[in-house]
Amino acid sequence: MTDGPYSVAVLIGSLRRDSLNRKMARALEGLAPSSLRLTDVPIGGLPLYNQDLEPETPAPWVEFRDRIRAADAILFVSPEYNRSIPGALKNAIDVGSRPSGQSAFKGKPAAVITVSPGAIGGFGANHHIRQALVFLDMPTLQQPEAYVGGAAGHFDEHGNLAKEDTKVFLRKFLDAFESWIARLKR
Amino acid sequence: MTDGPYSVAVLIGSLRRDSLNRKMARALEGLAPSSLRLTDVPIGGLPLYNQDLEPETPAPWVEFRDRIRAADAILFVSPEYNRSIPGALKNAIDVGSRPSGQSAFKGKPAAVITVSPGAIGGFGANHHIRQALVFLDMPTLQQPEAYVGGAAGHFDEHGNLAKEDTKVFLRKFLDAFESWIARLKR
Amino acid sequence: MTDGPYSVAVLIGSLRRDSLNRKMARALEGLAPSSLRLTDVPIGGLPLYNQDLEPETPAPWVEFRDRIRAADAILFVSPEYNRSIPGALKNAIDVGSRPSGQSAFKGKPAAVITVSPGAIGGFGANHHIRQALVFLDMPTLQQPEAYVGGAAGHFDEHGNLAKEDTKVFLRKFLDAFESWIARLKR
Amino acid sequence: MTDGPYSVAVLIGSLRRDSLNRKMARALEGLAPSSLRLTDVPIGGLPLYNQDLEPETPAPWVEFRDRIRAADAILFVSPEYNRSIPGALKNAIDVGSRPSGQSAFKGKPAAVITVSPGAIGGFGANHHIRQALVFLDMPTLQQPEAYVGGAAGHFDEHGNLAKEDTKVFLRKFLDAFESWIARLKR
Repeated sequence: MTDGPYSVAVLIGSLRRDSLNRKMARALEGLAPSSLRLTDVPIGGLPLYNQDLEPETPAPWVEFRDRIRAADAILFVSPEYNRSIPGALKNAIDVGSRPSGQSAFKGKPAAVITVSPGAIGGFGANHHIRQALVFLDMPTLQQPEAYVGGAAGHFDEHGNLAKEDTKVFLRKFLDAFESWIARLKR
Repeated sequence: MTDGPYSVAVLIGSLRRDSLNRKMARALEGLAPSSLRLTDVPIGGLPLYNQDLEPETPAPWVEFRDRIRAADAILFVSPEYNRSIPGALKNAIDVGSRPSGQSAFKGKPAAVITVSPGAIGGFGANHHIRQALVFLDMPTLQQPEAYVGGAAGHFDEHGNLAKEDTKVFLRKFLDAFESWIARLKR
Repeated sequence: MTDGPYSVAVLIGSLRRDSLNRKMARALEGLAPSSLRLTDVPIGGLPLYNQDLEPETPAPWVEFRDRIRAADAILFVSPEYNRSIPGALKNAIDVGSRPSGQSAFKGKPAAVITVSPGAIGGFGANHHIRQALVFLDMPTLQQPEAYVGGAAGHFDEHGNLAKEDTKVFLRKFLDAFESWIARLKR
Repeated sequence: MTDGPYSVAVLIGSLRRDSLNRKMARALEGLAPSSLRLTDVPIGGLPLYNQDLEPETPAPWVEFRDRIRAADAILFVSPEYNRSIPGALKNAIDVGSRPSGQSAFKGKPAAVITVSPGAIGGFGANHHIRQALVFLDMPTLQQPEAYVGGAAGHFDEHGNLAKEDTKVFLRKFLDAFESWIARLKR
């Protein structure tokens, strides 16, 4: 195959330093096939979206939009806050989608993995993100869906994946995402 | 009736100075029955939620939580951003809901009105907010649903409501909210 | 208290004779406080909703609507099919909601419990039902949310609840529903 | 182009003979590019899904699954009932998706258009269908979203499209769907 490598911008929905989602993003970077280059794009420094600021666009918005624009695809790695998308991640989506008609996300293949300490694995956040991706015109990987519940148990004390079957699933997820990107970029 | 007056904290989903939602909030304050006292609680100055900051809780979080806690009920007035809740409003919801077990929102009656320039009237944002309110244990007004589409046409050049039938609908919405609060506070 | 007893119509989302949801409904009937009288209202014999049939309303529709109308409150006990409401249950909701302006469901307090063999516990079905209940103007119990995952493990070979903590949770859920109904009927 | 023609199974969410959605399906058939062959697959005769019936699978289920399996892609044309998918359409989705592991829908490109008399254009049904399509592993057209509100005004007394701009939009929608199918079939 002459496809790839593809650069994948990873948006992490939690700002905590030791968040399970940050660990998950690290794990995914380590497990990704060589044709996928995963890189975090930080979202914690983005001022809340306010259209009134556009005339003198805040520098963090410009940088964020540039990084999204430079990526071949986007991977969302997120917890669920109050049965929906964390505000910080939704703010990043809003910032990257503006100004109207100049969305940095437009057309980029996407995948979503949600990670939560509880059993449900962030289902509510996962599908709220997916609803936004419809509007953003981002063709989104459907299967395998990735809801990682009981997330604390998936990592050891060093923040590494503790179980082989988690790795197997995540590799399958990443391979499917790689195929999805390749299919759409062809 | 000896019920009320009830203090209602109004959360406006747009940070723009001239936003349609801000105009809508002003209009609702003017139309509210005397038993409802609507007051904006600003959300634009809230740092993005990050649990790592809780040990030295940011002052804007403390103030926001106190104002929510002091209210009898909550009214969400919001646009739709990318088919979901604006990041700034979701961040306010996240800030007010923490720390875990100490949510300022818990149990407070709520209502949701979404306002958008397009025809759909923010349906996606409206129901994503409602999904969060389930988790927050906030009994939420079901009817009338309030999706205000084509919102620019509802206001005149001074930002006042331009049409009598909009006022009639909004009064009906506010009266239903007042009855809902009274029913639950009894 | 002189409240109640309240008659609760139970709608079971699966038509299988041995479905986990049917077992759950039986278990709930057994655990309910004396102030709640839970009775299944069957949905498997309802012809698919088609407005053209209303002039000679099918007898099963008439009977279903009458039984819903006679109930004080409605309890939905449902699996998730394809991340949403089972068609049979949605059809029952549609039948009961018509003709327009004569919904049998209008105003009745509701609660939702979803039961699935997988880990997620029917989250998608649960919230799609809740979205319908907004339109139907049914005040819906927010907490505790009831997503029962890994459902096969909750029942023994006789179809009875196998674990004490499941019973504790379900009693808490039913008590909350009873309080919710009482609060709204007062 | 050597792509196509593609056979597209059209699932109409309303069973009414004169439904707006049936008119819309007819209109779409007439407007479709020559590379798309749209054909209704009726859903009104499908018994409600019940796994207990699988050992002697009802003939209408067999025929429906065969017709779905034979199609290159699926187009959903649906009203919104009670802010969600009509029961009859959800039942068809459930029937086509079973038995487990043998879904007739798997992998087929899909598009969704919702049509309603009110202003909102079936947004709730549209996105509930989309959530099911994630589980069904059906890559779904993201843009243009198709919410057709005020639908009665789009048709003349003969059931034909009354406005040129509606036709322009629908042709754009169909062309985008054709490109989406071609992109995925390549």
